[in-house]
Amino acid sequence: MATDVTLTLVQPTLDDALRDIAHEVDALLDALLPVPEDARAPLYRAMRHAAIGGGKRLRPLLVTATAQLFGVDRAAALRAGCAVEAIHVYSLIHDDLPCMDDDDLRRGKPTVHKAFDEGIAVLAGDALHALAFEWLADPATHPDPFVRCELIAGLATAAGPGGMAGGQMMDIAAPGANFDLPAVTRLQAMKTGALIAYSVEAGAMLGRVSPDVRTSLKAYARDIGLAFQIADDLIDATGDEATVGKAVGKDAAAGKATFLSLLGPERARSQADALVEQAVNHLGSWGAEADLLRAIARYAVDRDR
Amino acid sequence: MATDVTLTLVQPTLDDALRDIAHEVDALLDALLPVPEDARAPLYRAMRHAAIGGGKRLRPLLVTATAQLFGVDRAAALRAGCAVEAIHVYSLIHDDLPCMDDDDLRRGKPTVHKAFDEGIAVLAGDALHALAFEWLADPATHPDPFVRCELIAGLATAAGPGGMAGGQMMDIAAPGANFDLPAVTRLQAMKTGALIAYSVEAGAMLGRVSPDVRTSLKAYARDIGLAFQIADDLIDATGDEATVGKAVGKDAAAGKATFLSLLGPERARSQADALVEQAVNHLGSWGAEADLLRAIARYAVDRDR
Repeated sequence: MATDVTLTLVQPTLDDALRDIAHEVDALLDALLPVPEDARAPLYRAMRHAAIGGGKRLRPLLVTATAQLFGVDRAAALRAGCAVEAIHVYSLIHDDLPCMDDDDLRRGKPTVHKAFDEGIAVLAGDALHALAFEWLADPATHPDPFVRCELIAGLATAAGPGGMAGGQMMDIAAPGANFDLPAVTRLQAMKTGALIAYSVEAGAMLGRVSPDVRTSLKAYARDIGLAFQIADDLIDATGDEATVGKAVGKDAAAGKATFLSLLGPERARSQADALVEQAVNHLGSWGAEADLLRAIARYAVDRDR
Repeated sequence: MATDVTLTLVQPTLDDALRDIAHEVDALLDALLPVPEDARAPLYRAMRHAAIGGGKRLRPLLVTATAQLFGVDRAAALRAGCAVEAIHVYSLIHDDLPCMDDDDLRRGKPTVHKAFDEGIAVLAGDALHALAFEWLADPATHPDPFVRCELIAGLATAAGPGGMAGGQMMDIAAPGANFDLPAVTRLQAMKTGALIAYSVEAGAMLGRVSPDVRTSLKAYARDIGLAFQIADDLIDATGDEATVGKAVGKDAAAGKATFLSLLGPERARSQADALVEQAVNHLGSWGAEADLLRAIARYAVDRDR
C-alpha cells in the first residue's frame, strides 16, 4: 500500500512537467549549439534564436512522458525530444518566410528572417534539419543501432513529403482548393499530426515496446494531434497576437478551409473534447503512471481556456 | 594471364561510367519519387524537375566507384548515391533562391523557384533533405543497422552546420569578409568538399572497410574535392552560361575571394593538377580496379578542357 501511495505522489503534475521539459530542452540545445568563433557565428545565433527559450515543448514532452512509461533513460529520451523539436523549429523558420506564410512574430519574438535575414533563415532551418538526424544517429541516443535507425526512419517519414512537408504543400494549395472536412483532416494529419504522433512513437521505440502497445499509443497520439490542431484553429480565431506570440486570424483572411470554418466554433470545440476523451480511452490499460499523458491530452485542447 | 586481361577489359571507361550512373540515378529517383494524385503533386513535380535528368552525378559515381572496390551490391551503393545526390540537389534548390544566390538557370533548366514558385522551392528542398535520410535508414540500403547509422551520421555531418550548410553561411558572409587562402580553403572544404568526401566514405562504409584503408580513401576524396572546386572557379571565370548550364562570373562580380582571385589562373590550374596527382597517389596500393577512381580524379579538373 505504501508503495502505491509513493508511486502516485511522484507522478509530476502537468505544470511541473511543462516547466521541467522547457528547462531541460533549453539546457540541452544550449549545449548542442555552441556558437563557433568563425564566419558561421550568425548561423548558430539564428538557430539559437529560434530554438532556445520559447515554445511549449509539447513534442519533447510527449517523447519523455511516453519513454518514462517504459523506464527509458531520461537523458536519451531528451536527446530524441530535442531532435523532434529541431525538426519542428526548422519547419517554423521556413513556414514563416516571406515566400511562405510571411510572419514577423513567432513565440513572442521576431521571426528569424526578421531578426537576421532571409538567407540565414533558410540556412538555419536547413542546419537544424540535418542536426536532428545527426543527434539521433549518435549512440548517446540509444546504444542499439537498430533502435536509432528506427527513430531516424520514423522522423524522416514524419518530416518529409508524406508528412510535414507534404502537409505544408497542401496548405500552400489550400486557399483556392475548397477542401472539405476529410481533406482538411488529411492535411492536418500530415502537417502537424505526423510529428506529434512520431513524438509518442519515439518514446515507444526507445522503450522497445511490443507492436500491440505501440498501436494503442499511436491511436492516442493521432487523436491528440487532431485535437491539438482544432484547438489551434480556435486560438487563431479568438486569441490575440500578444498572448499567442504569433500572428492570428490569418487562415480566415486567406480564405482557407479549417476545422473551424467547416464545423463552426461549437462543433469544433465539442469535436476536440471528444477526441481528447477518445485519446484518454486508448490509455485505458495503464494506471497512474500514464496520468501525465492523460493530462497532456487535456492540455492539447485547454491551452486557451 | 587471361584473368588479368579480362579484369582490365571489364573496367569501365569514365565515359561509360558517367553515362551508366546518369541513367541509373535517373531510373532510381524516378521510382523513388512517384507523383501522388493529390494537392502534393506540385511538390513532387518540383523535386523531379530538380533531381531527374541533369547534372554530372559525380557524387553517386564516387559512391558506386568506391563501393565496387569492396564488392558491394550495386543496388545498395546506388541507393546511398541517390541519398547523397538528394542532399546535393536540395542544396542547389535553396542556394538558387532569390534570398541566396538568386539564380535563374541550373543544369541548363530554369531553377525550381522560376519553374514553380519560391514557397514550393523551399519545400522541395526540405522534402528531398528528409527523403535522403529516409532512404538511408531503409534496410534496402544495407542489412546491418550499424552501417546504416554510420551512413546517416556521416551524411548529416557533411550536410549540416559543420559541413555544407556551414560553408554556405561562410559564402554568404564572403563578399565583405576579405578571406585569405586558408579561409577560402576551409570554406570550400565545408561547402563542397564535405559532401564529395562523404561520397567516397559512404562507399567505404558500405564495404565495411578497415580504418587504415578508409584514411587513404578520405585523403583521396579531400584532394579531389578541393581540385574540383578550383576547377569550378576556373569554369565560372572562363565558361559561358549555355555550356555550363548555370550563370557564370558571379563570384568576381560579387567581389568574393576565390582560389582564382587569390592565386591567378596559372597557379590555380597548376594547384588543381597537383591535387589530382596527390589524390591518385593516395590510391597507390590499388591496381587496375581503382582506375575508375583515378579517372574521376582527372575528370574533376578536366571537365572544361
